[in-house]
Amino acid sequence: MDAESSHTQFTLYDHQYMARAIQLAKQGLYTTDPNPRVGCVIVRYDECKQGRIVGEGFHVRAGEPHAEIHALKSAGELANGATAYVTLEPCSHTGRTGPCAVALAEAKVTRVVLAMVDPNPLVSGQGIKLLEASGVVVEAGLLESDARALNPGFILRMQHQRPFVRLKMAMSLDGRTAMGSGESQWITGPEARTQVQRLRARSSAILSGVESLIMDDSRLTLRADQLALANADEVVKRQPLRVILDSRLRLPLAAACLREPGRTLVVTTEQHSEEKRRELEAAGAEIIVFPADQAGRIALADMLRWLADNEQVNELLVETGATLAGALLDANLVNELQLFVAPTLLGGEARPLFALPGLTRMADQKRLTIKEMCAVGGDWRIIAEPYLAKPCAD
Amino acid sequence: MDAESSHTQFTLYDHQYMARAIQLAKQGLYTTDPNPRVGCVIVRYDECKQGRIVGEGFHVRAGEPHAEIHALKSAGELANGATAYVTLEPCSHTGRTGPCAVALAEAKVTRVVLAMVDPNPLVSGQGIKLLEASGVVVEAGLLESDARALNPGFILRMQHQRPFVRLKMAMSLDGRTAMGSGESQWITGPEARTQVQRLRARSSAILSGVESLIMDDSRLTLRADQLALANADEVVKRQPLRVILDSRLRLPLAAACLREPGRTLVVTTEQHSEEKRRELEAAGAEIIVFPADQAGRIALADMLRWLADNEQVNELLVETGATLAGALLDANLVNELQLFVAPTLLGGEARPLFALPGLTRMADQKRLTIKEMCAVGGDWRIIAEPYLAKPCAD
Ligand SMILES: NC(=O)c1ccc[n+]([C@@H]2O[C@H](COP(=O)([O-])OP(=O)(O)OC[C@H]3O[C@@H](n4cnc5c(N)ncnc54)[C@H](OP(=O)(O)O)[C@@H]3O)[C@@H](O)[C@H]2O)c1
Ligand SMILES: NC(=O)c1ccc[n+]([C@@H]2O[C@H](COP(=O)([O-])OP(=O)(O)OC[C@H]3O[C@@H](n4cnc5c(N)ncnc54)[C@H](OP(=O)(O)O)[C@@H]3O)[C@@H](O)[C@H]2O)c1
Repeated sequence: MDAESSHTQFTLYDHQYMARAIQLAKQGLYTTDPNPRVGCVIVRYDECKQGRIVGEGFHVRAGEPHAEIHALKSAGELANGATAYVTLEPCSHTGRTGPCAVALAEAKVTRVVLAMVDPNPLVSGQGIKLLEASGVVVEAGLLESDARALNPGFILRMQHQRPFVRLKMAMSLDGRTAMGSGESQWITGPEARTQVQRLRARSSAILSGVESLIMDDSRLTLRADQLALANADEVVKRQPLRVILDSRLRLPLAAACLREPGRTLVVTTEQHSEEKRRELEAAGAEIIVFPADQAGRIALADMLRWLADNEQVNELLVETGATLAGALLDANLVNELQLFVAPTLLGGEARPLFALPGLTRMADQKRLTIKEMCAVGGDWRIIAEPYLAKPCAD
Repeated sequence: MDAESSHTQFTLYDHQYMARAIQLAKQGLYTTDPNPRVGCVIVRYDECKQGRIVGEGFHVRAGEPHAEIHALKSAGELANGATAYVTLEPCSHTGRTGPCAVALAEAKVTRVVLAMVDPNPLVSGQGIKLLEASGVVVEAGLLESDARALNPGFILRMQHQRPFVRLKMAMSLDGRTAMGSGESQWITGPEARTQVQRLRARSSAILSGVESLIMDDSRLTLRADQLALANADEVVKRQPLRVILDSRLRLPLAAACLREPGRTLVVTTEQHSEEKRRELEAAGAEIIVFPADQAGRIALADMLRWLADNEQVNELLVETGATLAGALLDANLVNELQLFVAPTLLGGEARPLFALPGLTRMADQKRLTIKEMCAVGGDWRIIAEPYLAKPCAD
């Protein structure tokens, strides 16, 4: 159901309040996972059609109340006769606080404006139906694309059972990610690393190939001091799941990430040794065995689907070397590329950005759409979308 | 002599008129070579100190009058008692039209404001002396860095007997300049190619390694239709000198550039065959023999100095492959890098941006300063300066 096709005429007020609801939703950017980021604003209009905000709320964390419940609570009696602006269709199922659609109707809200309907095809439209059955006027599709951008991963997972794959690479201006020897710390500066910390913080999981772990022994964790966020201490309470692709269980038992807070999931194939498996499990890893592709490597599309279905992975941040990064691109599994470009040259002997072994003719080049280019400290961030990838969230 | 250290207090009017003189000078960007781009504005101030432009001029072409002469001519009698704003110190030598300093004094200009003194150490300050001897007030150093930016090559040639070396590369976002096979046309779009045409047009000469010529058979010429300039027909009358580095005279006799208007200079070493030399000369090339470095290749710094001294090369545009580009960078001979970046990936098997064989440790990376980053059609242009290169023009 495409809400934007309903052609409702929204007022300037409507836009303003929905923009505020989106702003509120963003406050949950680093904490709602695996739930979506949702914001809600409750507005009373007077006889001159002047609006006034009487309640606000956003979803903070899974297990805690939804945005609507917070907003209704802060509005109290004033919700009676008011308009509610919600970035996502209110739920119709009974969670910890009962369906939000019922709560809005019971508070006697008379009009509900939605940015987007629920992306889950199993429940989409049911919140609207519930509201309308109670006599509430519902209008949907206001600032829809902004609202979708709040939850690219949640939407993809609900609609296509796969995560939003964000591939982050740090590179030199000549497209190099490490010296020939593997030496790579640090290409970019501290400001870029703060941005990477925030990308981790909004992700459900971080994916890496075993070579990067062997080479860099990265911890793949959130660090409160590097996040530079007011709520950093809250944010780091949830460590994204670490996912390591390791067909033959070569991950060292002493790997730093195994001693960090949060879970480390090592994805392997039948080719591994049972002994190493037991040792890794004893060291704190969870192991999952996957079918191998023809090359004996983990089948990537299956792995992504598994993460969406079994680990509720909305946004997956890939931090890895040219091999796995190239394999993901080659399989058209990347939704967004974030390149942190340092103003430096590492030369032709250094390691490439992407191994794309099949690419030998200009005609096969992988075109991208550049979405954003901006300075980050002394470096540059380029956000791009692979040209032929399926749309991020449709 | 550093004019900016004189601490003259310039007025807002002064700034405004000098900015106009610089704007005028830019009109000669593609035609003055090997002379500098110079602009001149003549202003009368009334009793209320309000200024009014009474004459304007810029240098169009070597052999034609200097900017001051054009401006004096358009001012006529009104030059008497006026202030002249000139982007470069007026000459003191007798050219086709007599020294400009004398012409200004004879026209009874009472004040001359200069952006910069003559960079030629042999004559620097002499124009000022001549003016002051005639009772003219001279002030120097207004908008000096903007004025210097008009003539980076002319200044370097005058002060250090070498050209301003501008290295242009077309690359993919992953830092690749050609497929493994050498296939490279086209990485960037038509708008980027127009910008490259304009870089050629402002250059005295274009430098390329013989491999690029063998591979791409480029013409290395200005084409009026691609320049997209109002005065394109005028501009293409001067074709930049084509300089090809070719230690053993491997340039094919059928090379397209040999049949184009303008001169082709093939720089070689003693290692060449006399027969091929005669054949290339018969095909239209000029051959010059240079000492080889230890690797048997043309000694680059000597070659650049030779071009400045013997061919009056101000700005040299390098359009070549990773080998020669890397060699120039490695020798710290590049003043400016212009990267035209296409939003595409060519993969790890494609050719690198720069061969820098000596670079193996992060500590040896070549840091750059990014000066500009902007969209050019569907591509991006990045202008950068190698961090350790000597300043462009000091
Ligand atoms: N600049 C940056 O942003 C950045 C980030 C991280 C790392 N790095 C650098 O990258 C280098 C390591 O990169 P790398 O390219 O050698 O390796 P990598 O991409 O980190 O890991 C690749 C490994 O993942 C495993 N894998 C499992 N299934 C796969 C599949 N379907 N496709 C591809 N790989 C699969 C393979 O090992 P098995 O066959 O054993 O499973 C493969 O060798 C290091 O030098 C590191 O410093 C740079
Ligand atoms: N993307 C772009 O902007 C762009 C532009 C031009 C070309 N290209 C591509 O680049 C490729 C060719 O590049 P390439 O790297 O093979 O060669 P190149 O840089 O074009 O030419 C290098 C050659 O110049 C000669 N040379 C003489 N003195 C030298 C010195 N001191 N240092 C270095 N070279 C010297 C050498 O040949 P001798 O030893 O025989 O003298 C050397 O092999 C082609 O595929 C072409 O399509 C791309």
